[in-house]
Amino acid sequence: MTAPQQQFSRRAVLGTAAAGVAAGLGAGLTGGRALAVDGAAPALGTQQYAFHGPHQAGIVEPQQAKVQLAAFDLAPTAGRQGLRELMRHWSAAAERLTRGEAIPGSEDFVAADAGPCALTVTFGFGASLFDRTGLTASRPAALTPLPAFPEDALDPARSDGDLWVQIGADDALVVFHAHRALLRAAAGLATQRWQMSGFSRSPGATAKPLTTRNLMGQLDGTNNPRPGAKDFDGKVFATGPDWFAGGSYLVQRRIRMLLDNWDNLPTDRQERVIGRRKQDGAPLSGGTEHTPADLTAQHPDGTLAIPADAHIRIAAPAANGGAAMLRRGFSYADGTGPDGRPDAGLLFLAFQADPAHGFVPVQRRLARGDSLSRFLRHEASGLYAVPPGAPEGGYVGQQLLEG
Amino acid sequence: MTAPQQQFSRRAVLGTAAAGVAAGLGAGLTGGRALAVDGAAPALGTQQYAFHGPHQAGIVEPQQAKVQLAAFDLAPTAGRQGLRELMRHWSAAAERLTRGEAIPGSEDFVAADAGPCALTVTFGFGASLFDRTGLTASRPAALTPLPAFPEDALDPARSDGDLWVQIGADDALVVFHAHRALLRAAAGLATQRWQMSGFSRSPGATAKPLTTRNLMGQLDGTNNPRPGAKDFDGKVFATGPDWFAGGSYLVQRRIRMLLDNWDNLPTDRQERVIGRRKQDGAPLSGGTEHTPADLTAQHPDGTLAIPADAHIRIAAPAANGGAAMLRRGFSYADGTGPDGRPDAGLLFLAFQADPAHGFVPVQRRLARGDSLSRFLRHEASGLYAVPPGAPEGGYVGQQLLEG
Repeated sequence: MTAPQQQFSRRAVLGTAAAGVAAGLGAGLTGGRALAVDGAAPALGTQQYAFHGPHQAGIVEPQQAKVQLAAFDLAPTAGRQGLRELMRHWSAAAERLTRGEAIPGSEDFVAADAGPCALTVTFGFGASLFDRTGLTASRPAALTPLPAFPEDALDPARSDGDLWVQIGADDALVVFHAHRALLRAAAGLATQRWQMSGFSRSPGATAKPLTTRNLMGQLDGTNNPRPGAKDFDGKVFATGPDWFAGGSYLVQRRIRMLLDNWDNLPTDRQERVIGRRKQDGAPLSGGTEHTPADLTAQHPDGTLAIPADAHIRIAAPAANGGAAMLRRGFSYADGTGPDGRPDAGLLFLAFQADPAHGFVPVQRRLARGDSLSRFLRHEASGLYAVPPGAPEGGYVGQQLLEG
Repeated sequence: MTAPQQQFSRRAVLGTAAAGVAAGLGAGLTGGRALAVDGAAPALGTQQYAFHGPHQAGIVEPQQAKVQLAAFDLAPTAGRQGLRELMRHWSAAAERLTRGEAIPGSEDFVAADAGPCALTVTFGFGASLFDRTGLTASRPAALTPLPAFPEDALDPARSDGDLWVQIGADDALVVFHAHRALLRAAAGLATQRWQMSGFSRSPGATAKPLTTRNLMGQLDGTNNPRPGAKDFDGKVFATGPDWFAGGSYLVQRRIRMLLDNWDNLPTDRQERVIGRRKQDGAPLSGGTEHTPADLTAQHPDGTLAIPADAHIRIAAPAANGGAAMLRRGFSYADGTGPDGRPDAGLLFLAFQADPAHGFVPVQRRLARGDSLSRFLRHEASGLYAVPPGAPEGGYVGQQLLEG
């Protein structure tokens, strides 16, 4: 059996729900279980990630083609009991949907003709949730408001929130359907605060392994920690408090790109802003995309190959006390803003063991010295504690809510 | 060579541009030309449709996973000469991009790492364009404003326009990139009037052949004319005036679905509104999805199996003097509207030989008697003349502009 993403195969399961899908696309069938023809890509619909596990799905799994992000605020009357009910409902719905099954009684048939399509549903808790449910004492220490950064232009209506949800899949209707299901399950318990949708490359659109290209045309994510690397878990997953062990902190920023300004900049100047070649992502110090950047390399005239204010120099872990995070961003394109310019950019998502040693020091440096920052505008922000995964039969947050 | 959509294979070409893509996904390579392994789906990126041909691409080709629609108004000073220049630039850009090639001098590398991803770019002319360029005498007779329909709630800012563009592909970044390229090519010649984006199922998400499911959960498009059927061209393509022979009229309606109301309706009542079973699309008179609806069938108690106000009865060609059109709609989901409800629904697109014998009589009946109409709100509208395709070396609209 060939999983399309070998490095993430722990969770990847070729599903049984979409046997009919696979049959039409060249995957062989054995006893209702889809097996990919040797070397061939399995049908997109059959890609399945388990909902249950030590960590929630939607962190180490590769970005899907489509994402829906949303925050919810708990109803004033819901309290801890309401939160428990909500997380039970949401977890049960997410578990069914990620298997490619309909929610009992829903009479929805989206799942009946599509496979799971790599659906993941990930839940996070904002700081305000703990106060609202009398759980302040259990709030993870690092779940405190992010500091203000110079040039932030944040819209509170699209920031923060008691609960955070990430729904990703390779088919937009599967995402829409899962989002509707969560909205229905939240009725009376929580109301949606904001929603954003984004996209990444479609499976099969590009040669693998290829780093995602963002709306500026740059390869984005070259230096991301790789699942399976020896220090990966230490960078991404928290170890405490007890109920939160195996969880992760998620920083979300809606970063608008000033694309008209960017596109007017000649490619060689764009490359000096980033510190990498646009075509292949190689650092300007030489090599190929995954060659480590040599921050000391100089041109024959003595100038730095990677300029002093280049994005990759300022953001380099070496320059930030080893700070690292797992970026899992998506592009967004929401038409034209009120200013007549593209309302488009990056839904920056970064999972990390501790934001005080991840996003915060890096963003402090970027906001001050990064040549790229004049082409970006941070328009929304949130920090959430993403609980560990639920075991079979459990729900996300159970360790906190019944601990 | 296996084309994934046999019925549309006239135009389908497995591309050469994305050889590297195919190699990573199990397609064999022979002299730079991608060949699918027998029975296996070709890599999504390699799917290619020719820009040139007797009809424009993006009409008979199946809906791609992602679409960008936009209208432009010609700059006041552009005139016929400016329009000619614009259509030459746009056609050249579209032709390169649909081959999966970069536009010379653009320094964009999206195309370099993705194949064409089934990109089509389709252009249309609104009635206002003809007056603005002194071409009123050449305006096709049927390109007159659509009549007002009861219950229309049209936003003029998102309706009409001198020029209409449809960009479809199976990868969202390819669509975004093509849209940016057309915007750049329009600089000084035309300004964007509105834009909308939509989606359909991702290739491989569902078993084929399967009709698209819309946001209401219904199979939508069962009775669509099929390319290759004997009367297909007569329904879809116009025969005159001379410059327009082989063109088509496109009606676009942004149809918001009142999903909260719809979802509150029990499934059996939803089915009576539509006249089909939700799960498999079979008409309520019996059979399977493609069984012709028997409009006279009765239940044992003498009531109609397909209710008198069911959508498929009112819209049936038999009830509308044989009116038919090729629907090629996409779903849209733009978050929450100012009224707090989903701003989501259908970007209805219908190509037809003559709107006076296609959309207009059908919509007149639907607006009066269709049980479905109370769950829909038409919020934007446009009618455009989609010129015939350009021959190799030519550009779209050349027959009009140099005729």
